[in-house]
Amino acid sequence: MNMLSMKASHDSHGQDSSYFLGWQEYEKNPYHPFQNPNGIIQMGLAENQLSFDLLESWLQKNLDIVGLKRDGVSVFRELALFQDYHGLPAFKNQLVNFMAKIRENRVKFSAEKLVLTAGATPANEILMFCLANPGEAFILPTPYYPGFDRDLKWRTGVEIVPMHCSSSNGFKITSFALEQAYQQAQKQSLKVKGVLVTNPSNPLGITMTKTELNHLVDFAIDKGIHIISDEIYSGTVFNSPKFVSIMEVANERSSQFHEILNRVHIVYSLSKDLGVPGFRVGMVYSNNEMVVSAATKMSSFGLVSSQTQYLLAHLLSDENFTLKYLEETQRRLKQRREVLVSGLRNAGVRCLKGNAGLFCWVDMRNLLSSSTFEAEKELWKKILYQVGLNISPGSSCHCSEPGWFRVCFANMSEDTLRVAMRRMKAFTDSVFSANFNGIRRSGFAQHNTNYATRSSIGKWVFQLSLHEESEPCTHCEL
Amino acid sequence: MNMLSMKASHDSHGQDSSYFLGWQEYEKNPYHPFQNPNGIIQMGLAENQLSFDLLESWLQKNLDIVGLKRDGVSVFRELALFQDYHGLPAFKNQLVNFMAKIRENRVKFSAEKLVLTAGATPANEILMFCLANPGEAFILPTPYYPGFDRDLKWRTGVEIVPMHCSSSNGFKITSFALEQAYQQAQKQSLKVKGVLVTNPSNPLGITMTKTELNHLVDFAIDKGIHIISDEIYSGTVFNSPKFVSIMEVANERSSQFHEILNRVHIVYSLSKDLGVPGFRVGMVYSNNEMVVSAATKMSSFGLVSSQTQYLLAHLLSDENFTLKYLEETQRRLKQRREVLVSGLRNAGVRCLKGNAGLFCWVDMRNLLSSSTFEAEKELWKKILYQVGLNISPGSSCHCSEPGWFRVCFANMSEDTLRVAMRRMKAFTDSVFSANFNGIRRSGFAQHNTNYATRSSIGKWVFQLSLHEESEPCTHCEL
Repeated sequence: MNMLSMKASHDSHGQDSSYFLGWQEYEKNPYHPFQNPNGIIQMGLAENQLSFDLLESWLQKNLDIVGLKRDGVSVFRELALFQDYHGLPAFKNQLVNFMAKIRENRVKFSAEKLVLTAGATPANEILMFCLANPGEAFILPTPYYPGFDRDLKWRTGVEIVPMHCSSSNGFKITSFALEQAYQQAQKQSLKVKGVLVTNPSNPLGITMTKTELNHLVDFAIDKGIHIISDEIYSGTVFNSPKFVSIMEVANERSSQFHEILNRVHIVYSLSKDLGVPGFRVGMVYSNNEMVVSAATKMSSFGLVSSQTQYLLAHLLSDENFTLKYLEETQRRLKQRREVLVSGLRNAGVRCLKGNAGLFCWVDMRNLLSSSTFEAEKELWKKILYQVGLNISPGSSCHCSEPGWFRVCFANMSEDTLRVAMRRMKAFTDSVFSANFNGIRRSGFAQHNTNYATRSSIGKWVFQLSLHEESEPCTHCEL
Repeated sequence: MNMLSMKASHDSHGQDSSYFLGWQEYEKNPYHPFQNPNGIIQMGLAENQLSFDLLESWLQKNLDIVGLKRDGVSVFRELALFQDYHGLPAFKNQLVNFMAKIRENRVKFSAEKLVLTAGATPANEILMFCLANPGEAFILPTPYYPGFDRDLKWRTGVEIVPMHCSSSNGFKITSFALEQAYQQAQKQSLKVKGVLVTNPSNPLGITMTKTELNHLVDFAIDKGIHIISDEIYSGTVFNSPKFVSIMEVANERSSQFHEILNRVHIVYSLSKDLGVPGFRVGMVYSNNEMVVSAATKMSSFGLVSSQTQYLLAHLLSDENFTLKYLEETQRRLKQRREVLVSGLRNAGVRCLKGNAGLFCWVDMRNLLSSSTFEAEKELWKKILYQVGLNISPGSSCHCSEPGWFRVCFANMSEDTLRVAMRRMKAFTDSVFSANFNGIRRSGFAQHNTNYATRSSIGKWVFQLSLHEESEPCTHCEL
């Protein structure tokens, strides 16, 4: 064993969390409406499958491009040889246009500040390699994407200091929580080099407000540290408030403190907004020349296939297509999310109010046997094995409160989503009914009169819980 | 500046060597037969451009595949979503078949031991992350590929201990040299975790003999360390002796010492053998389950585009095509190399005997003003700026003897290669003539009678040198 590195022989990759384990279970027994109707439904995968018809229709009209031709002449040779880590200029120009379009042109991006990477995964790791030495730290608001433990820490040796957000304010970022995390890092003798946020948030499915972004900038100015904003879901924002990029706020604040521009970095990708994770297109955007220079060299460890750059450069250059694609996809996401939210509501479960992303952040505290992470895991296993839904427990996202789950809604057909909702309904009915009977037998109902009252109002407010502390979430949708 | 990491703010990426500087100069003033006939000819780029006609003809016959269809039906959706880091099974099966074919099926490979990476660059880095901790070391025979300083060391913190090979035995790997390097590492308190070789060698353009490979295995067994064999040029072997993979030797030796199988790892890529570096297809092959498991997870930082996997899976599945492609490419490489060797011979410069690769290892010691690396750099600059050829000096490959250069021959047309050879001839004529006149004036010719004798035999043996130590290379082609 000791012939291998620590990285290879230890579990520091973080892939043993229930987030990844749920995937493995799904793969053993995947749901299919006819071939395996009792299989597990994958609701742990943040894929955007809602607009393939639009993409396929574009491809059908552009067979020359798909076929690696330009004006009828093959460009195969040119592409086969193109391994310049600066990327295809035409592709990068279209990418910065697309990024600006998503931000309604309130901010402009320039192609020479963009570094292409094979997905957002290497983009995040590259920024860690550029901004922090091994043993230095980044603050991450919780709950955060489970993959970050692997992506940010594993090979870089960088540490993550969690900043605990609370359901009491809808998991918002506050100056107080940032400062607390910073103090915590100091106690652990960790040098903090920056804060990394996902905006729109994965797993919360919400955008950051301008107030939150300004708190973040204040904090970064005060401590002399970096901000990384992972904005890979920026094109999925389907409801107000509108998406505000960190770059807009940094630009506004730069008149007062110019240096902040050099310390704000964006990670972007086409995997979510365009629904093409298999094509591995990610990027780092930075105003910091040294970061761009180092990140470009590091991009050698994960360049984007030139074949893919060529295809997507042409796709994105079609203005009519991209506008229609974004608008239609956002409309469909909104509609699909409503199916999930109303389905869960019908099952007595509520979702955090959301306006973006491919998932809901779901409050299942009323289904826990106790307000503990053990109870959360127990519930997760029940939902995975008995109900047949793979959802992601909040603990895998380092959420500090047990009972929250990320539930994806855009990686399946509407029919499948409705099957999932029926299963949830049957499950919660059985839980609530068992609890209710238990309560009747133990006289617990008399003690908890508020539950009985609520249950008479409607099923969705039937907040039965075996533990008494659970407060209804005021930031959830009614 | 201390806001950034050491990696981003220091030059440890190794990209400031003359190898990379020459590329930059070329890009400022690239040769074109009509538009820029006095521009720099790029002979520093190991690209295989000789068989695009074969690839394009295959594509022309397989428009459905290029167009992302299967039996006329689009597979776009399926591919767009495919981001499994285990790779497309069909592609991996074809890759292991192709690897076996190149080794004439003397060794078999199995798809589940193969990890796909976005090129050989991340494959080599991933093996460093898996096999060594920061501060531990790998031994590399010199001269070696200049990019290794970046690829192996920069982000991993692994050290390279050079093992000095000598022109006196044709730069062969010996047990003595391996042991010397090991002792050197111990003096520097570096723990050696393995040896990394390129076979066929870049920059030497030769394959390793079975004797050398056995020395390597003996050494790895003796010291309890790993062997990485970067075999990205294995399909380019155009002359005897045949290519022997480390895996063949390891298999033979495993009856005597089974554990060695777990410590031999191959890096492979389609960039050189198939001439498609822009498509970013590389891989790690290992019998070591823990290495495969960790490398698979690390491959998330540089996955291969599913679009590219699909296309190349089908290309490689065409047995007739691959056999013909390999045979014809090797024939063309052999012929093209002969143009280079005879052109240089005509200019009084000799090449190490070679049988593989896209380059020659060229002995220009007779053109140095002194046997120093300063003189080598001076000559390199003359050839770059005055002659207009970008070739790679041995010093950029960490060669321990000044005066050797890597010259690529497969990344240009034959016409361009002939222009390069005419330029070389004119250059060496002027050098030899100036030297000869200088010698006549100083009486140096009388002192060095051997040169005068040789010059009467033929121009190519006109080994004029301003320093006297230069011995003709007995391992060079006559």
